[in-house]
Amino acid sequence: MPELTLSPPLAARATFAARYTAVRAQTAALCRPLLPEDTVVQPVIDVSPPKWHLAHTTWFFETFLLQEHLPGYERFHPQYAYLFNSYYNSLGSRVNRADRGTISRPALADVYRYRAYVDEHMQRLLTDGDEARFAEVLELGLQHEQQHQELLVTDIKYILSTNPLAPSYFGPEHAAPAPQPALPAASWLPVPGGVGRIGFQPEAGDAPGFCFDNELDAHPVYVAPFELQNRLVTNAEYLAFVEAGGYQDFRYWLGEGWDRVQTEGWQAPLYWVRPEAAGGAWQRFTHHGLQPLDPAAPVTHISFYEADAYAHWAGARLPTEPEWELAARHFGADAAGGNFVESQRYDPRPLPADADPARCHQLLGDCWEWTYSAYHPYPGYRKAAGALGEYNGKFMINQLVLRGGSCATPESHIRLSYRNFFHADKRWQYTGIRLAR
Amino acid sequence: MPELTLSPPLAARATFAARYTAVRAQTAALCRPLLPEDTVVQPVIDVSPPKWHLAHTTWFFETFLLQEHLPGYERFHPQYAYLFNSYYNSLGSRVNRADRGTISRPALADVYRYRAYVDEHMQRLLTDGDEARFAEVLELGLQHEQQHQELLVTDIKYILSTNPLAPSYFGPEHAAPAPQPALPAASWLPVPGGVGRIGFQPEAGDAPGFCFDNELDAHPVYVAPFELQNRLVTNAEYLAFVEAGGYQDFRYWLGEGWDRVQTEGWQAPLYWVRPEAAGGAWQRFTHHGLQPLDPAAPVTHISFYEADAYAHWAGARLPTEPEWELAARHFGADAAGGNFVESQRYDPRPLPADADPARCHQLLGDCWEWTYSAYHPYPGYRKAAGALGEYNGKFMINQLVLRGGSCATPESHIRLSYRNFFHADKRWQYTGIRLAR
Amino acid sequence: MPELTLSPPLAARATFAARYTAVRAQTAALCRPLLPEDTVVQPVIDVSPPKWHLAHTTWFFETFLLQEHLPGYERFHPQYAYLFNSYYNSLGSRVNRADRGTISRPALADVYRYRAYVDEHMQRLLTDGDEARFAEVLELGLQHEQQHQELLVTDIKYILSTNPLAPSYFGPEHAAPAPQPALPAASWLPVPGGVGRIGFQPEAGDAPGFCFDNELDAHPVYVAPFELQNRLVTNAEYLAFVEAGGYQDFRYWLGEGWDRVQTEGWQAPLYWVRPEAAGGAWQRFTHHGLQPLDPAAPVTHISFYEADAYAHWAGARLPTEPEWELAARHFGADAAGGNFVESQRYDPRPLPADADPARCHQLLGDCWEWTYSAYHPYPGYRKAAGALGEYNGKFMINQLVLRGGSCATPESHIRLSYRNFFHADKRWQYTGIRLAR
Amino acid sequence: MPELTLSPPLAARATFAARYTAVRAQTAALCRPLLPEDTVVQPVIDVSPPKWHLAHTTWFFETFLLQEHLPGYERFHPQYAYLFNSYYNSLGSRVNRADRGTISRPALADVYRYRAYVDEHMQRLLTDGDEARFAEVLELGLQHEQQHQELLVTDIKYILSTNPLAPSYFGPEHAAPAPQPALPAASWLPVPGGVGRIGFQPEAGDAPGFCFDNELDAHPVYVAPFELQNRLVTNAEYLAFVEAGGYQDFRYWLGEGWDRVQTEGWQAPLYWVRPEAAGGAWQRFTHHGLQPLDPAAPVTHISFYEADAYAHWAGARLPTEPEWELAARHFGADAAGGNFVESQRYDPRPLPADADPARCHQLLGDCWEWTYSAYHPYPGYRKAAGALGEYNGKFMINQLVLRGGSCATPESHIRLSYRNFFHADKRWQYTGIRLAR
Repeated sequence: MPELTLSPPLAARATFAARYTAVRAQTAALCRPLLPEDTVVQPVIDVSPPKWHLAHTTWFFETFLLQEHLPGYERFHPQYAYLFNSYYNSLGSRVNRADRGTISRPALADVYRYRAYVDEHMQRLLTDGDEARFAEVLELGLQHEQQHQELLVTDIKYILSTNPLAPSYFGPEHAAPAPQPALPAASWLPVPGGVGRIGFQPEAGDAPGFCFDNELDAHPVYVAPFELQNRLVTNAEYLAFVEAGGYQDFRYWLGEGWDRVQTEGWQAPLYWVRPEAAGGAWQRFTHHGLQPLDPAAPVTHISFYEADAYAHWAGARLPTEPEWELAARHFGADAAGGNFVESQRYDPRPLPADADPARCHQLLGDCWEWTYSAYHPYPGYRKAAGALGEYNGKFMINQLVLRGGSCATPESHIRLSYRNFFHADKRWQYTGIRLAR
Repeated sequence: MPELTLSPPLAARATFAARYTAVRAQTAALCRPLLPEDTVVQPVIDVSPPKWHLAHTTWFFETFLLQEHLPGYERFHPQYAYLFNSYYNSLGSRVNRADRGTISRPALADVYRYRAYVDEHMQRLLTDGDEARFAEVLELGLQHEQQHQELLVTDIKYILSTNPLAPSYFGPEHAAPAPQPALPAASWLPVPGGVGRIGFQPEAGDAPGFCFDNELDAHPVYVAPFELQNRLVTNAEYLAFVEAGGYQDFRYWLGEGWDRVQTEGWQAPLYWVRPEAAGGAWQRFTHHGLQPLDPAAPVTHISFYEADAYAHWAGARLPTEPEWELAARHFGADAAGGNFVESQRYDPRPLPADADPARCHQLLGDCWEWTYSAYHPYPGYRKAAGALGEYNGKFMINQLVLRGGSCATPESHIRLSYRNFFHADKRWQYTGIRLAR
Repeated sequence: MPELTLSPPLAARATFAARYTAVRAQTAALCRPLLPEDTVVQPVIDVSPPKWHLAHTTWFFETFLLQEHLPGYERFHPQYAYLFNSYYNSLGSRVNRADRGTISRPALADVYRYRAYVDEHMQRLLTDGDEARFAEVLELGLQHEQQHQELLVTDIKYILSTNPLAPSYFGPEHAAPAPQPALPAASWLPVPGGVGRIGFQPEAGDAPGFCFDNELDAHPVYVAPFELQNRLVTNAEYLAFVEAGGYQDFRYWLGEGWDRVQTEGWQAPLYWVRPEAAGGAWQRFTHHGLQPLDPAAPVTHISFYEADAYAHWAGARLPTEPEWELAARHFGADAAGGNFVESQRYDPRPLPADADPARCHQLLGDCWEWTYSAYHPYPGYRKAAGALGEYNGKFMINQLVLRGGSCATPESHIRLSYRNFFHADKRWQYTGIRLAR
Repeated sequence: MPELTLSPPLAARATFAARYTAVRAQTAALCRPLLPEDTVVQPVIDVSPPKWHLAHTTWFFETFLLQEHLPGYERFHPQYAYLFNSYYNSLGSRVNRADRGTISRPALADVYRYRAYVDEHMQRLLTDGDEARFAEVLELGLQHEQQHQELLVTDIKYILSTNPLAPSYFGPEHAAPAPQPALPAASWLPVPGGVGRIGFQPEAGDAPGFCFDNELDAHPVYVAPFELQNRLVTNAEYLAFVEAGGYQDFRYWLGEGWDRVQTEGWQAPLYWVRPEAAGGAWQRFTHHGLQPLDPAAPVTHISFYEADAYAHWAGARLPTEPEWELAARHFGADAAGGNFVESQRYDPRPLPADADPARCHQLLGDCWEWTYSAYHPYPGYRKAAGALGEYNGKFMINQLVLRGGSCATPESHIRLSYRNFFHADKRWQYTGIRLAR
């Protein structure tokens, strides 16, 4: 299956040129199984057309690197900045986000030509340019493209899921993995309280080189002692909540969550369906089309509202962001070992946890873990100057922090201080539940 | 330009098999210049993706002909009926109309395979079957496909128009036609009053063989004597209305029309723009991309509200449906001679009228002419039994009748008794203005 | 019950001063049972607050009579024109229609002061002024106020109906009338075809003195012979449609009507409910609160969609506007005898028809009868100059004609040529069904 | 002006019966200047009709006290629970919140009868009942009614503000207070960092007796040293932001805030207008109608988005909730001295601060201060059992904490640990800005 060979996690010290090549190739690899038709559609506003992702990531390098640092560079096309700017007011007007799925041109082939053109010029810049002047923005461009790789995985899944044909992203020659039996009950692991530090801390062992501005400044926080579950909540556990009437009882839900349950008719996580053909049994839509629930695998594609309601029902709660990070730092090496996009070649999905009750599993990879903390600036947060100041700062309202990365995250992209963020009702990412108490 | 060779108007007495082949080929020919990406999108609910048109017209033959009349026929795909049913409640649930642009599969290539499969079985039916049993439905299927050919022309135009690249449907090697100078003023032609008959009347010279159920029964109507303009209103004439502030003065407008002007920000017909690059001059979007206004050509892509407001401003009014048809029958042979899809190979558009002030031009072809008559059933109208009863009857409310066909209509498809219908605010069809008084 | 004494039908030749006094008193009489709180609310956009009706009708006289024809007249308040203009663009900006229910001031008492102030000045004008100069507008003002009297009856009913307390408009001392047994089947009365004249025709016996501009010009129309039912469809007959599953079967419905049934959850006419307390029996909300269905009384508060669907189910159809008027003129004196607002002092509602199968009942009064004709201009229709040109003309799109007046119409206000109009989905007026075939 | 005599702040140790009487009387006093018409309307969903507030607070006592603790109590009316339940799912269905302004009955007079009936029974309960069994809920009822007193002040203001007549809440005999000259620049006061405790702490001097469940548990937090301004931002200071183009420059705004500026057309705080009659000068709508801006008074009626944008523009930031509370506890006695509803008899509004630069002013009273902290549960938060568990907990998402009370808050209702909360776009409360850095 050569077209799905994703690149291995990159050595931290690879050269920029090597990393640039590898990251860009990974994006294209993720799109290779798609038809041109698949790359155009936008079934909901959150889900961008794959063609748009391919072009937008390219526009990022063109705009922030080539335009700024490669003398004499000429844009590939005068209108592409209008077409592929995402949300940078500093860079002028653009296609309305909700209309991305109405834009059939440029053709997919033209977008690949655009990528090749920019890649060629980027190699020239990387060969001849003064790396010191643009290293920071280049690093940001690579991280940015990795973020869009994750979105490609989730957006492609959504696009295929809304199709009545329930198509598989993979060829039929690749069988879906078989479910595993349910896991033993999770254990509770104590985490000591006190003042600790959160945020990006290379001096404390965080891999040096890069973090987003929203991870700064590292700063002290106080948390009381608490306990954390040693693994993510599983499908089997969540199914018990569904079957106990969890979606019919307002008492478990935040008010706005309950409104959402009513207006959207939620009865289970996104992608769970009970097709008549399956005799009413729950199935889930996957990159392989419809498949049986995997009892041992973490429940995923749930909103914050569902995570919080489940926690109430289970007599527990979600961790806060400081609790999550201090616990992750406390459990140290155990925190690694989850599943990332590179390990999920034939079905990006969270995998069942190792059964060792004494260790904390899946803190990185598998599912983004909802915290009960708002995505607000850290003390000492400073927006970058210029257009890149719009990268993170302007989103710091009405969203919740998620931690730890997922099965769709590139392994080289995640770290303990990484702050992801979504609105409480979003479900199309690989989101999951870690309980605290 | 072989890929744009549309079929010539068909001899009225061609065999079904020949007509089937020709009509089906014409549909494919209209789509040939498109990329797969172009065939997927749906920029507004009225505009269906070309891929959907290709499949839906095929589904019509499969459902109403092959399923019913070809023994042992097996559907090409079990889900296609769900995907490509348009609005027949009798035939079960279907993709929500507003979601047609979110469906990337089946691929365009699969849709062509679907067409080939159905065509092959249709040939078998046409060769071996008992024509008498299905001739009526077959005829309807051909007429239905011709209706979708017109929609393909208008929907493709809309899809390309919303793209910031303003792409041309034709290759760049085909130059857009040059504008012509403005026409002399239109003349007023008297039409005698009295009781006349409207509706399909083969006994009165209407080409026999087919009409839609909404053209029946032919029946007497009384009209007072009136006058009709000898040609359609031109761009130059309509521009005078625009420049006189017609879109800023409520007095010319129906109340709901004025609301629409305000909420949609209408300032001119659909597709008229004043790009900065053109120094503020009005241009219009065409199948060749942006082009200068053609002063002599009929104004088109206007709503009923605009047609009515223009008529008020010009001190005239729109004709009623009975007036239009009785006038057309009165002017007889002169009514022919307009431009149809077959004559518009490299730019489907209404053409300037012949200048003879004594004759009535463009009654057929060029632009659909808004009448000030509601699309209601004729006396004696009877819905067909079964699903085909949903073809026309259920739309007989809140729409206005348009008459005469357009530059996107197949010539063999139109006749004097033909009733088209749209809501008063619709603008993406080739609609125009004929004044009466 | 003096506060509900409505004025008797006025002699056609009463003086303007007497008629002015009587009409104005009737408006106040209709509002007398209301609390100030009742006069403020607007539960849906169609229903205006009674306080607004009281003031708007007064504003009409102030604006079109006193301002124009009483020298030295000073407006009661500089802001009232902004507050109480309904829809006249010619007269400047105004409170958004949807916001009428958010305006608590002026107090109801102030509105009555406004009425008294204008009435006093109107008496001066009627005493001293040159009647010839303003008679036409004065007549229009009186007719306008009568139209709002009908709206007061229906709007008050709606306002009370949405209140969970289901309050009675009348004091508890007034018992609701008892239901009557079902009527024998309706008979079909033949109407001859041919060319006849519709529109206002004093020369043909229409009471001289006034018609709206939309009744002009009288003009010939051709209709084929047809039959009309001798009375309105009753609650008992309509209940059979409801119980036969009429609201669950798309085949009876126009497409937009079926959409409305789905999105609004219609299961019966407006105001029909099945309270648990009533053991599931249908009741209807009336000016007396909830009451049992009256089997013999005409079904009312139905949309055009429901009228049309019922007609389909019953194997009949609705008459067109020309059919209705020519039939009414054909049946002549029999057409009178219905129930109007003056005869309905203690429960405005349509009453059971007389049982004589040879006569045509209820053509005037009881219920407005939906026709299957669009509200479009008659040939020769001319808008008045100035602001009053907005009275009727700008509404001539997307509405259907209703004929004959209702139990909420003042008897002196209706005539055979009267054209009322509503959108096809409206239900809060006293609308009913007369079948044709 | 006896009808505006509000009760003085209550002695902390007053008996329940005395406090019940005083609190209930205050509610009625606030409504006394209103007409019945004013008490019915709901111009936006956030603003409830005063009649509803009067009844809902009464329903609270009836439901949670009389029903539970007064043997043999009979509800005043069987439907009032449906009419006046606000949001308690545990207590069954209710009038949709958006429809409160469509309910004209019960009349205002009936609502006062309802209040008298419940008050009479409450006095019986307070006289005869076992206080220990219901003291906690009674206290909650009183606090609840005080919360609605604040809402009455702000909702009445909003209702009057949307009226084109711009009416005054007070009689014309009460002149609006004159503006004061601008204040000297604010000073920055240092606040030490470290671990401190926030939340309700009677052991640390918080007035014992009552707190809401959302103030519990008191718990340690860490904050870094910071500085806080010694007073609220003034109108003069905010005007400089407006005039510097703050509402036209996206760079100062959170993304969702900028969207709101665009879609709502915000150009200044709520209630700031520039009437033509005032020659384009900014005025503000007050309980006295339109008045000039008061340069020295705190800016108020601003959203979180505006507070945050202003802070960015001013080179500062908003405090977090822990910062605010620890600062307030640090400045101790200085925190008192603001203006509350009792001190604002003839114009509820925030007043200019005392000019002493060494002291921290207005921490309590004048304006609620937006913090940049989400309204989430404190560690150890536990929802109450039963319906009262819905009082606070289900709102803990997507809202921001405001601290300190306002000029519309009863003085006896506020304390340093009090957590108020609103969505980031809300502007109709007396919200203001305290800068930190």
